[in-house]
Amino acid sequence: MDDDRAPRNFDPAWWQRDDLQYRAGRLHFAGRDLRALAARTGTPAFVYSAARVRANLGRLQVALAAEGVPHRVFYAIKANRFRPLLQAMHEWGLCGIDVCSPAELQYAMELGFDAADISFTGHAVSNSDLDTLARHPEVHVNCDALSTIRRLGERCPGRSIGIRVNPRVGAGYNDRLHYAGVRPSKFGIYRDRFDEALELAARFRMKVTQIHFHFGYGYLTRDLPQFEEALANAAWFVDRCPDIDTLDVGGGMGAPITPEHPPLDLGRWAALIARATRSRNLKVHLEPGDYLMKDAGALLCEVNTVENKGGVNFAGVDAGLNLQNLWAYYQTPFIIAPLALRAVGEACETYTVTGNINEAIDVLAEDVLLPQLQEEDFVALLNAGGYGSAAASNHCMRGGFTEHLLD
Amino acid sequence: MDDDRAPRNFDPAWWQRDDLQYRAGRLHFAGRDLRALAARTGTPAFVYSAARVRANLGRLQVALAAEGVPHRVFYAIKANRFRPLLQAMHEWGLCGIDVCSPAELQYAMELGFDAADISFTGHAVSNSDLDTLARHPEVHVNCDALSTIRRLGERCPGRSIGIRVNPRVGAGYNDRLHYAGVRPSKFGIYRDRFDEALELAARFRMKVTQIHFHFGYGYLTRDLPQFEEALANAAWFVDRCPDIDTLDVGGGMGAPITPEHPPLDLGRWAALIARATRSRNLKVHLEPGDYLMKDAGALLCEVNTVENKGGVNFAGVDAGLNLQNLWAYYQTPFIIAPLALRAVGEACETYTVTGNINEAIDVLAEDVLLPQLQEEDFVALLNAGGYGSAAASNHCMRGGFTEHLLD
Repeated sequence: MDDDRAPRNFDPAWWQRDDLQYRAGRLHFAGRDLRALAARTGTPAFVYSAARVRANLGRLQVALAAEGVPHRVFYAIKANRFRPLLQAMHEWGLCGIDVCSPAELQYAMELGFDAADISFTGHAVSNSDLDTLARHPEVHVNCDALSTIRRLGERCPGRSIGIRVNPRVGAGYNDRLHYAGVRPSKFGIYRDRFDEALELAARFRMKVTQIHFHFGYGYLTRDLPQFEEALANAAWFVDRCPDIDTLDVGGGMGAPITPEHPPLDLGRWAALIARATRSRNLKVHLEPGDYLMKDAGALLCEVNTVENKGGVNFAGVDAGLNLQNLWAYYQTPFIIAPLALRAVGEACETYTVTGNINEAIDVLAEDVLLPQLQEEDFVALLNAGGYGSAAASNHCMRGGFTEHLLD
Repeated sequence: MDDDRAPRNFDPAWWQRDDLQYRAGRLHFAGRDLRALAARTGTPAFVYSAARVRANLGRLQVALAAEGVPHRVFYAIKANRFRPLLQAMHEWGLCGIDVCSPAELQYAMELGFDAADISFTGHAVSNSDLDTLARHPEVHVNCDALSTIRRLGERCPGRSIGIRVNPRVGAGYNDRLHYAGVRPSKFGIYRDRFDEALELAARFRMKVTQIHFHFGYGYLTRDLPQFEEALANAAWFVDRCPDIDTLDVGGGMGAPITPEHPPLDLGRWAALIARATRSRNLKVHLEPGDYLMKDAGALLCEVNTVENKGGVNFAGVDAGLNLQNLWAYYQTPFIIAPLALRAVGEACETYTVTGNINEAIDVLAEDVLLPQLQEEDFVALLNAGGYGSAAASNHCMRGGFTEHLLD
């Protein structure tokens, strides 16, 4: 309840952009009026802009090129594997694919990606997974455990590999998202066992040509000092590998989810990468997943229940955590955007937007200021392009949705 | 690392029971040697005991009958909808089904349950959901918002309904699980708007015959004082409904997940319910979901990676949060049980068990004492019978699993 405060307005200025903005009160994305689209497709519906994916990809590549960093991008396909979008990415020919399971590998090859354009970065890798990788010697494998090096070596002696290391520093949208912080995480090999890792690789005549690290999920400009520290920590590993030619900086680059934290400054980001790699004559690989997809997709929902309960305005919609888990997992909010505005300067309320799954944790955004909602309004969950349909379930048998490529 | 402490042993005594115990070093469940079964079925595999489901159901019914409480159970099907298990439940004829979506309603009817044996307790209910309910007038609907009462009333004037209220006190395995605590949750109607709810019902000539509340997820004996308070709060609503004949105490009854907290004392639980309902001449409905399924199912996995990282023993398995989300959502641990023990009193280590999904949150249990694990060992995640396959996804395209009814 905001009675004591000055009235505030719904202000989309911080997230609007050329391809995502209100025109005559209707939210347009990739040239389409989403209100008209939702009426036609029904809800819930995921909508994507391939052009935005391409812009996100291009921005990374331009930033690295501007610093003279030789680089290749491997899109982490787990973020979104909607076939028309992936087909478009294949046609562009601008990136490879990073996979984390045999089924993802199979799918990437079905899409037409060559084995040489595919990297594998998995955790808790089974013997069966390794048997599959052994059948595809051109796929680059980043090993995240001594065990993986040993078991891959037994199958493919002499194969070049990457080693995923744990940089022991990480950042992201919030504390739950630190993949590599002070508390040990499951990912990567730590300093204390790196000699063993290299001995294992040598035993199987495997050249270690890459060091891979993953820094977090959703890091922004504020996190660049820690990113620099992670690069320095990665260099410790790099400098122990005589055959190294590539540093893989993983993914985790963030998109703004609140107005307080602006977009990642890619110029500074690329400069840090250049400084860490230039003197070592390293190429750079990166594996963006959500960075390409997050703000290139939205989940369109219908508001079905607007009600003040216990002093909180709840707006219930016809989608839930089974279609987009990010709030449930990490308490990262979506941007909620009504598809149609009624009037300029219309009255606003603070809402908690909830899904239609019977779990207390099924919340999509808390305490967000929105124009007064009415039942049967449509809203978009922005920043919903990654880890949505790719991780969707039929929990409560509410798993139905459609997906649409807008351009 | 436990170097400084006295050695401890793996002690399954607190969770073993007649139908789930080690015999000659092999974990048996429902009369089956799970190690032999896993070798045959492969992993990951969900295994269930229908007899255990029936025992869990019977225990609730016996406890209420012993207190002379007239009652009916509606199994909350969202916890597990594995068809052979549901077919068995239908054959027993001991309970109805609680659904929360039109697809669940359809599925329950396909299984042979009569509409009169089905209740609907949903959140963020759409007009389309209500259109479906309107076609099934025998289904009992618990309305969790004024909006639902109004929109159901428009479709079905004169229909008897239940009202889901928020008792403003809750408990569960931990703080993330309080469905009805001091912080307003999305569920139910609060006191301040109950008069409006009754007026709406009266406007559409709908008799309010039930009050429904849900107290949490995983409440145990320690939580019974709060449960008593919830019953008292529910009585406040009951006493305002002249046509009331039933109190629906929802679900949320817990099973032990740690040795510190023993099973829910159903005698005390039933006595509290009897005290709240007897003088009011109320029948009791309940909607157990996980209480029936949780300890009647296990997820069998193979350990593929055992490795000390940063001082923590990690054991990676071939399943992850995409098959069992409970740790990721609520940080409630599974019981990890090796399917085969090597020797009596064998050395133990503390392990963090992780899944094969590339998310930092993909952990299944933290810091659990287990006999020394080796790669290719099989383990069971016990207490995995609910919210597993029913909410499974293909995240990372690691969604494959099998399901087996053991008896």
